[in-house]
Amino acid sequence: MDLESIENPGFLKSCSRQDLENLGEDVRQFLIERLSVTGGHLGPNLGVVELTLALHQLYNSPEDKILWDVGHQAYVHKILTGRGGEFDSLRKYQGLCGFPKRDESEHDIWETGHSSTSLSAAMGMATARDLKGENHHVLPVIGDGALTGGMALEALNHIGHEQTNMTVILNDNEMSIAPNVGALHNMLGRMRTAGRYQKAKDELEYLIKRIPAFGGRLATTAERVKDSLKYLLVSGMFFEEMGFTYFGPVDGHDYDDLFGNLEYAKKTEGPVIIHVITKKGKGYGPAENDAKGTWHGLGPYKIESGEVVKKPGPPAYSAVFSDTLERIANDDPRVVAITAAMPGGTKLDQFAKAHPDRMFDVGIAEQHATTMSAGLATQGMKPVFGVYSTFLQRAYDQLVHDVCRQKLNVFFAIDRAGLVGADGETHQGVFDIAYLRHLPNMTILMPKDENELQHMVYTAVQHDDGPIAVRYPRGNGYGIKMDEELKALPIGKWETVREGKDAAILAFSTMLPIAEEAADAMATQGLSVKVVNANSAKPLDEDLLQELAEQRMPMLTLEEAALKGSFGSAVLEYYHDAGYHNVTVDRMGIPDRYIEHGSVPELYEEIGLTTEEVSERLKQLAPRKEQRA
Amino acid sequence: MDLESIENPGFLKSCSRQDLENLGEDVRQFLIERLSVTGGHLGPNLGVVELTLALHQLYNSPEDKILWDVGHQAYVHKILTGRGGEFDSLRKYQGLCGFPKRDESEHDIWETGHSSTSLSAAMGMATARDLKGENHHVLPVIGDGALTGGMALEALNHIGHEQTNMTVILNDNEMSIAPNVGALHNMLGRMRTAGRYQKAKDELEYLIKRIPAFGGRLATTAERVKDSLKYLLVSGMFFEEMGFTYFGPVDGHDYDDLFGNLEYAKKTEGPVIIHVITKKGKGYGPAENDAKGTWHGLGPYKIESGEVVKKPGPPAYSAVFSDTLERIANDDPRVVAITAAMPGGTKLDQFAKAHPDRMFDVGIAEQHATTMSAGLATQGMKPVFGVYSTFLQRAYDQLVHDVCRQKLNVFFAIDRAGLVGADGETHQGVFDIAYLRHLPNMTILMPKDENELQHMVYTAVQHDDGPIAVRYPRGNGYGIKMDEELKALPIGKWETVREGKDAAILAFSTMLPIAEEAADAMATQGLSVKVVNANSAKPLDEDLLQELAEQRMPMLTLEEAALKGSFGSAVLEYYHDAGYHNVTVDRMGIPDRYIEHGSVPELYEEIGLTTEEVSERLKQLAPRKEQRA
Repeated sequence: MDLESIENPGFLKSCSRQDLENLGEDVRQFLIERLSVTGGHLGPNLGVVELTLALHQLYNSPEDKILWDVGHQAYVHKILTGRGGEFDSLRKYQGLCGFPKRDESEHDIWETGHSSTSLSAAMGMATARDLKGENHHVLPVIGDGALTGGMALEALNHIGHEQTNMTVILNDNEMSIAPNVGALHNMLGRMRTAGRYQKAKDELEYLIKRIPAFGGRLATTAERVKDSLKYLLVSGMFFEEMGFTYFGPVDGHDYDDLFGNLEYAKKTEGPVIIHVITKKGKGYGPAENDAKGTWHGLGPYKIESGEVVKKPGPPAYSAVFSDTLERIANDDPRVVAITAAMPGGTKLDQFAKAHPDRMFDVGIAEQHATTMSAGLATQGMKPVFGVYSTFLQRAYDQLVHDVCRQKLNVFFAIDRAGLVGADGETHQGVFDIAYLRHLPNMTILMPKDENELQHMVYTAVQHDDGPIAVRYPRGNGYGIKMDEELKALPIGKWETVREGKDAAILAFSTMLPIAEEAADAMATQGLSVKVVNANSAKPLDEDLLQELAEQRMPMLTLEEAALKGSFGSAVLEYYHDAGYHNVTVDRMGIPDRYIEHGSVPELYEEIGLTTEEVSERLKQLAPRKEQRA
Repeated sequence: MDLESIENPGFLKSCSRQDLENLGEDVRQFLIERLSVTGGHLGPNLGVVELTLALHQLYNSPEDKILWDVGHQAYVHKILTGRGGEFDSLRKYQGLCGFPKRDESEHDIWETGHSSTSLSAAMGMATARDLKGENHHVLPVIGDGALTGGMALEALNHIGHEQTNMTVILNDNEMSIAPNVGALHNMLGRMRTAGRYQKAKDELEYLIKRIPAFGGRLATTAERVKDSLKYLLVSGMFFEEMGFTYFGPVDGHDYDDLFGNLEYAKKTEGPVIIHVITKKGKGYGPAENDAKGTWHGLGPYKIESGEVVKKPGPPAYSAVFSDTLERIANDDPRVVAITAAMPGGTKLDQFAKAHPDRMFDVGIAEQHATTMSAGLATQGMKPVFGVYSTFLQRAYDQLVHDVCRQKLNVFFAIDRAGLVGADGETHQGVFDIAYLRHLPNMTILMPKDENELQHMVYTAVQHDDGPIAVRYPRGNGYGIKMDEELKALPIGKWETVREGKDAAILAFSTMLPIAEEAADAMATQGLSVKVVNANSAKPLDEDLLQELAEQRMPMLTLEEAALKGSFGSAVLEYYHDAGYHNVTVDRMGIPDRYIEHGSVPELYEEIGLTTEEVSERLKQLAPRKEQRA
């Protein structure tokens, strides 16, 4: 079937079982081929082919509301809802988004990217339906990993209590991104192997009724009753206890099993959970046998060999962080690393090889990770929470209330700070300076390159004056020479990387190369521009700022971070609070809107974080010095 | 016993059971008497008298770590750890804190105020213990309400998986602050009535073994097996499934029961949960029979009559909010109110009386509340989340990712914005402007009085251009005349409440009276000061700001909010981004540290938000106009 010609899922209503089987094969082939060129989340989507086809055949989207938790598994849904023709642009600038997007289709009724939101959103939708007297179905599809997020558990608690009609599809692939951890995961494991809940219940009833007939064989009966009991206890009881009717486990690649349970759920009052077992990467060998999580989301690959196309390059910032931490931990028993289900992305899986007893993967649970770190710090340990900028957002109150307020020595290694590219607006790490800077006792460092990162990791471990964050970008460093000895950097002392007298750029991290290029461009026009590596957003280098003000130097702050409340604002605050009311400070950074997906250079272009724009601003700024002198 | 002479809990080791009984009575009497004068959290503390005495007799604090979740139930702990003599200053400026405080005592090893943090902190402490090869006990005491917070559930999941040694005391008083909601609560209810887990298990074993002996009475046996099964299923299985060993339910006012289970738990490997049933307000009639939650935390009362001393006064901001919303909801079926376990504090219990089907109490679950609101908004409803400023911190990522990014029409009614007084640093609502202002699509309004609040509530319900927050202070309005007709206010148009030509104060909410008083004081010195009600922090009134800049007016921003990233910063950002580099803007607000408990006027005094300080600043500012002209 020509998948690019599909306009909406209506055609599925007349599909036979065989049609579905064939269509599923076509979808798999399509995904394997297209993603080999564009990259994307192959494994999760191969796992939900049958499930997605079944949902769209049995229900009527968009009247019925299908919500994709996290959302990286919505490619099949996108194909069925008229977007097959756009897959060449997947995750590219102004192309198809890698997550559900309301602008793209009326069938994308809820946008995701972060995990564990679907149950709460579904509860809102179902409640609206009931208040309006409508009568459609609400179907959140949530993975076993996302289920461990605190918000999802809060939602289960509320939905079970209200007994609101909805059908939760628990897509259990035994591995969300990394292998799952947690008691819930273990419990699901028992459910998977325990056999059917319904069957076990029937069996018990049967046995109890039959007891007279067993006569002398009663010892055996007792054993069997106990086994049945065990089945009863381990399979689905958690969800039944939470007020849900449980169906499962269901083979997510077997249409009979899927339709049988979905049909049953349709007729059931109150909240239902269907426990669907799927295989990530199903139908493509390399992705099926994926112990390391490589095929969860990846760049281009060779279909035949399953070889992932890798560009050689300098070490990633994440790797430098993990390697340095490992090295420090060799001599410092206080160091404990924590990740919230991101051992691969943060490279802490490398640290864990050297120090398996000092790395904790707590699951998708940033709140717990942060406050557990605080608890470790009260006992003199040095917890290091490796976390993406965008995911630390989920622990804001724990930062305010547990860590900063108690002034505990927790080290936040903030990865993916700044624009992240193809993952787009849900994953851009642009708010961290704004949400961290106003927290009392917090220190915020930002390295200009991988060598400065290693020293900052050392500095942060030595820091014993409250929490400290080191924020570094996604991707690779510059391949510069790494110092052999680690050293503690002075905090709040910026580095002048180029002298100049007509204007000054205060920049950090990824913006420094642009700053230097702009300074070069200005030099050709006879203007000398000072460039400062402002490697600490809190505290500021007040001595240097005073000096600049006294020189009446026009300044440009330049940052890959949301402008409101950010580093540039800190500079303005400092000057006005210190009584310098006539400084010329211009600010460049991320404007007050969400930035969609695309390559980072394309996004820089879109928002004007380019050498040309910076040069233009400098041209306007520099003459101000003359006017003021 | 003279409770004020207790230095540490060591004396408990030699106490007999009768000594404990007597001491408990003394403690109760002490609390009832002292709190009748100072006010405080009476109900929760009367409920944990025996539990606290038992823990301190059996364990060795501070080597053994006792963590009080939320912390308002730590008064008995404070008495036993040498602070009985300080109860006259409870919750007063520079007096005893109403929550555990590490500065106060080595026995306060973990500070609280917000709920659901203790399990994560305990996990950090227990992990540190194991890594350091130490051998003490870790005992988080968590209420049934706090258990529904997402972070607590994340922690259960992780602790159960790691099988870390700790003893969780589940203090189940059937009512945390408001009556509890949620499936977990229902489940605990079943556990309470189900009888002992251990007993049920024994009974089942017994029955199964006896089956041969029952012969003809098998029908009965089957019934009994089923009953036993039911016991097994409903009691403790949730926790057993999560990897904990469950003991309970235990009578929290019976020392035999308490010690029996605590001793047993001491010998048990891995994580243990002891389900202790306590009665809030135990031993004081009015507090025991407290359907409305009055005795949870309150001001002074008369001991004999149980009459709460109430000062008559103008209507509270919370009440004006709820009443106005109720009135709007009478005509607008889109309005749905949501609270996270604060129906009384937000006064939404009043709204619920008129619109019971349109008020949802989701439990202590701000994340779920926020994203459920987002889900409601996708369906054209108008969700109104009534929440304290400090608790909305817990939904920061949901604001970023679900609400603002999707630009959904959710109305956040932010109560207790600004300083809250006696609850102190964990509850001050001073960060909201800083954590909301940098979110794209967000609008932030702040009323100057209760009349403006009612119009803002109306304005926010009508607003259909994305999320909107209305932040208003704790306590009562001014008793001013309320307009009869509700009207939609123009957003981003500030109000000049007094004209002046020498300087301008930009203030909002609680700071306006101080601004006006300072302007009065300046008038006596021949300076005329303009006062602006800057009732919108986002968007700003750019027209007015331009006008002020063109008049070269020296300005003072004055706010009861953290200065970093806040309203004053927004003004600075506007001017510099718009090219006004020589405006004189001075800023006053909350400095970069946590503000402890005390009356609001005392705290104003401490941080300099007073008429005198504002006048002083104005005196320095006003001459700048001359210099610049």
